[in-house]
Amino acid sequence: MSHPDREPAITRVSDLQTTDSRWIALHKIEYTDQAGTPRTWEVATRKTRGKAAVDAVAMGNVFLHPSKPPSTMLVIQYRPPLDAYTVEWPAGLIDADETAEQAAVREFKEETGYDCVVTSVSPAQAADPGMTNANMQLVMVEVKLGGDDALPEQRLEDGERIERVMVTLDDMYDKLVEYSKRDRFVVAAKLFHFAAGMHFAKTSGHVKL
Amino acid sequence: MSHPDREPAITRVSDLQTTDSRWIALHKIEYTDQAGTPRTWEVATRKTRGKAAVDAVAMGNVFLHPSKPPSTMLVIQYRPPLDAYTVEWPAGLIDADETAEQAAVREFKEETGYDCVVTSVSPAQAADPGMTNANMQLVMVEVKLGGDDALPEQRLEDGERIERVMVTLDDMYDKLVEYSKRDRFVVAAKLFHFAAGMHFAKTSGHVKL
Repeated sequence: MSHPDREPAITRVSDLQTTDSRWIALHKIEYTDQAGTPRTWEVATRKTRGKAAVDAVAMGNVFLHPSKPPSTMLVIQYRPPLDAYTVEWPAGLIDADETAEQAAVREFKEETGYDCVVTSVSPAQAADPGMTNANMQLVMVEVKLGGDDALPEQRLEDGERIERVMVTLDDMYDKLVEYSKRDRFVVAAKLFHFAAGMHFAKTSGHVKL
Repeated sequence: MSHPDREPAITRVSDLQTTDSRWIALHKIEYTDQAGTPRTWEVATRKTRGKAAVDAVAMGNVFLHPSKPPSTMLVIQYRPPLDAYTVEWPAGLIDADETAEQAAVREFKEETGYDCVVTSVSPAQAADPGMTNANMQLVMVEVKLGGDDALPEQRLEDGERIERVMVTLDDMYDKLVEYSKRDRFVVAAKLFHFAAGMHFAKTSGHVKL
């Protein structure tokens, strides 16, 4: 956000009890391990999971332009959990009555303004398996641009501010490293890992191309 | 885990209040957004973060063998939050008095039995920015093997069972897709995204190699 209306600011952080929360909860899991020993584990869960049995989708996107190199659209938004602007691929929760593909097309349109075509859907992946049961699917999507470069209107919810940034696929890794150095910016781990995988394939000398 | 002593089993899941938890907590964040509107957000946090200001490291590892293709070691373990076996890169929390590099070398030795050399350390990345402030650094490490293929002993904590699986870098993506299809197995999102980035670089035709 180069010119936000004003900088978001946290005014208060307080303990929240699972009894009082609307979106997320803590649970204590009691289990027996492989040796038969009883153990416990603490886990954070979402209260919103629907029939898909998967919480969320992220859209790995490729923009193809007649005269420009293949690019991807990143979204930058203020995230209160980090009190920072995060750099991510467009993403969102899957509604209770949606498939992953439907959620991907809907959320991509809302956050970027573009209609996209789904090219692949990953298996469900565990977001942070030591701490939560949250999971997601990576949906690869493609947008074919004409010559017109005007950005379509986003369909954001009241109060949502999402900045769109287009970077070429070849520049993506370096741009993410740059963003990470900026004050109050942080790159989301899944996006960074995808870019790091591309970078590793290109530069390590250990991958057959 | 092809032959665990017995299958782990969850015996009870109960609501946990932040007041009573040891490892993780829920917080309510009150903040003013870019338009100056007061809003709230719910977040899950770790109670264990130390001086590094980063929670965890994951070790993207490369094993170099005199006569075998470059490979990586994956770890498979039962994760109570998912009631499943997760396929991940070795990872762990950074202790209060450690740097990311130190934690990486220590945790890698504990989980794999191998001494490694750190080749790069990523910026801090946000694990799941909509839900938590949890963050991590991807530490790339290298192990040079001699001709001896015997697995060194792990240094696991009481009750920890971590299976080690070596896959070639060229097979990694396909193996992760296979694991995802197995009953009660799930691949961690960061690992999957790294592999998907490698796969995309090699196969999409959109990346200069």
